[in-house]
Amino acid sequence: MANVDNALALIVDSAVGRTIKVERVRIAESTGRILGEDIVARVNLPSVDRSVVDGYAVRVGDTENASAEFPVSLKLVGESVLGRECTVAMKSRETVALATGSIMPKGADAVVPIEDSISVSDDVIGVKLATRTGQNVVRKGADVSPGKLVLSKGRRLRPEDVGVLKVLGIKRVRVRVLSVGIMSTGNELTDSIKKSKGKIVDINRLVLGSMVAELGSFPVDLGIVPDREEVLMRALRAAVRTCDMVIVTGGSSVGKRDLVPKCINKLGKPGMLVHGVAMRPSMPTGFGIVDHTPIMSLPGVPVSAVFAFRVFGRSLIAKLLDSAEIVDPVLEARLAKKIRGVPGYRTLVRVIARKTETGLIAEPLKTQSSSIFMSIVAANGYVTLQENEAEVETGETVKVTLIGELQ
Amino acid sequence: MANVDNALALIVDSAVGRTIKVERVRIAESTGRILGEDIVARVNLPSVDRSVVDGYAVRVGDTENASAEFPVSLKLVGESVLGRECTVAMKSRETVALATGSIMPKGADAVVPIEDSISVSDDVIGVKLATRTGQNVVRKGADVSPGKLVLSKGRRLRPEDVGVLKVLGIKRVRVRVLSVGIMSTGNELTDSIKKSKGKIVDINRLVLGSMVAELGSFPVDLGIVPDREEVLMRALRAAVRTCDMVIVTGGSSVGKRDLVPKCINKLGKPGMLVHGVAMRPSMPTGFGIVDHTPIMSLPGVPVSAVFAFRVFGRSLIAKLLDSAEIVDPVLEARLAKKIRGVPGYRTLVRVIARKTETGLIAEPLKTQSSSIFMSIVAANGYVTLQENEAEVETGETVKVTLIGELQ
Repeated sequence: MANVDNALALIVDSAVGRTIKVERVRIAESTGRILGEDIVARVNLPSVDRSVVDGYAVRVGDTENASAEFPVSLKLVGESVLGRECTVAMKSRETVALATGSIMPKGADAVVPIEDSISVSDDVIGVKLATRTGQNVVRKGADVSPGKLVLSKGRRLRPEDVGVLKVLGIKRVRVRVLSVGIMSTGNELTDSIKKSKGKIVDINRLVLGSMVAELGSFPVDLGIVPDREEVLMRALRAAVRTCDMVIVTGGSSVGKRDLVPKCINKLGKPGMLVHGVAMRPSMPTGFGIVDHTPIMSLPGVPVSAVFAFRVFGRSLIAKLLDSAEIVDPVLEARLAKKIRGVPGYRTLVRVIARKTETGLIAEPLKTQSSSIFMSIVAANGYVTLQENEAEVETGETVKVTLIGELQ
Repeated sequence: MANVDNALALIVDSAVGRTIKVERVRIAESTGRILGEDIVARVNLPSVDRSVVDGYAVRVGDTENASAEFPVSLKLVGESVLGRECTVAMKSRETVALATGSIMPKGADAVVPIEDSISVSDDVIGVKLATRTGQNVVRKGADVSPGKLVLSKGRRLRPEDVGVLKVLGIKRVRVRVLSVGIMSTGNELTDSIKKSKGKIVDINRLVLGSMVAELGSFPVDLGIVPDREEVLMRALRAAVRTCDMVIVTGGSSVGKRDLVPKCINKLGKPGMLVHGVAMRPSMPTGFGIVDHTPIMSLPGVPVSAVFAFRVFGRSLIAKLLDSAEIVDPVLEARLAKKIRGVPGYRTLVRVIARKTETGLIAEPLKTQSSSIFMSIVAANGYVTLQENEAEVETGETVKVTLIGELQ
């Protein structure tokens, strides 16, 4: 049985070097997707020198002796209208009115804010401030200039990034399309609650598919596969051929004939690399590689499948996408009740973190049983106990990884 | 000028009591949406008693004296096949083979795991463990029973939640549809970089729209409106009538004739409630209410608009949706360089948080100017300086609110 960190390193390593397809999407649809190309600017932003305040364009030399007590008088020779090209030019002792964003007139090298000026007459402005070159001006190219690497391959696009793509004049971008095949195995599974009451409704494909989609990747629903070796072999073979990564749930516990690991080993080299991890829940988590395609063999029990995906699957997907991992919020909270770890295992204790007047409290859920799915729905976080942590006492401060809404 | 906390309280308060429309969506499309109904279970989960291990069903009384040294022999009378109804019943001194998830046979009240048994002969099993009632059994209704409130109105649906909806037999759920009208004002604005070079490409609608969508709400693009009172009045009137909330950027700085606040005040009561907040960036943030519809008047400068939305807009949307706020990850980091606050203002300092061998380092961006949009693209976080914090020295530990990927 593998230690969690060793298993994780092995799993993440398997992603190196795989080439992921890209597609071109409209920038408005690219938020949350992983950029598949470097974005290099070809233009200057701003494209011209602009004022960053409402005020008056000046020559620095003219304002040298200006002060509130002794304003310098400048002749108002025009206005640089916001949104239009600037046709006025100015000479020494002259000034041009500007709004925030107006293009700088020729001959000017700074802007005096309106609050540091007085209107002496219709065409004379008194400037109360000495200026320095470039003051209150955003220079052509100060934000972005041609050749600048604006966004790098592998970046998870944020709303702000989409904004910069728009000002660069980019309408579509290449983003990565990571296909994650998701299959459930088990004769007992069904998708319909109306089927015979002996059956169990499969949650895993829907939940894991939704988690995969949240990461900007594409779940491919490979359905429910019965516990028959030849059928499972066929399904896995097709999955490995068509997907960048495969998740199989069920059929991996020792009691259940170990069918999934057996098939993965038969399918190709190197086969199974991890068979069980020292983690609670999710101990029967396995991992293999066939023809360079990583395959996660997750427990059939939904709580265990979800935690195994959280701990191992998200990191693998980030690595395959060559992107940074999602950082879950981690909050400090006081334990409302003693929690216990399983010696030698990394233990994830489901808790409800609640705001109280005396700070955040973490209440461990009464049932930590992996057969109670509601425990993962009711919990909004979990506390991680390391392999050598036997217990943490009531009242102690713990770190809660937030997986749901704070209450 | 309002203090940040006072402005926020006022803004959030405005949301109370507004009724938000709902729509019914397929559960597979409901992740990230806000639940618009309480989900109450009508069924038991599990629907029958099931084993949680591979093993043998027993009567507790029969195993009373069982131990590893002296196993109790029980007659194997059948198997409860996983995925089928259980037709076998058992009497005292009998046992039935089970897999994880198998239905408990009639007459049994606990399960002995396979590893605590030995096969004595084809039809005799030796049990090495005394059991207690219900051991290794998940009872009918233990996870969910009829009448239980499973998910509450206002919940932001997670992948796990969608799983529970599926097992409850729910195919579609009511989710809230919050429409957020987004309008940019300014004669200088354009959507095309090919227009005259005097124009400025509008970023705000795209970026804010994308941020609104990330929150599970619906951005309504109200376009670019020129700086003309009658046109803006008409646009705002229509927006207030059709949207749950309106965001207008631009036209709010004092220099720009204060057009947006003026129009909001003319449009209806109570009109503008906040006109400027003591925050850097984003000082020219305003807020009003017309006919019970909240209107945010945000600065036209994109960096300021984005920060104002982060600080005020997200909270308002959460309140309108009657849902919990999104919690951004907050990480501790050592400052790579001294930062300064503006006295009397809440100052948000853009930083790049980087992992190093000695822990997380926060590098303040050289330019904190709001006219440099790349500062918000390059930053992956910000440090908040309170109104009374003049500066924080190099090497001190600060809290970084993460807004992008950790590097």
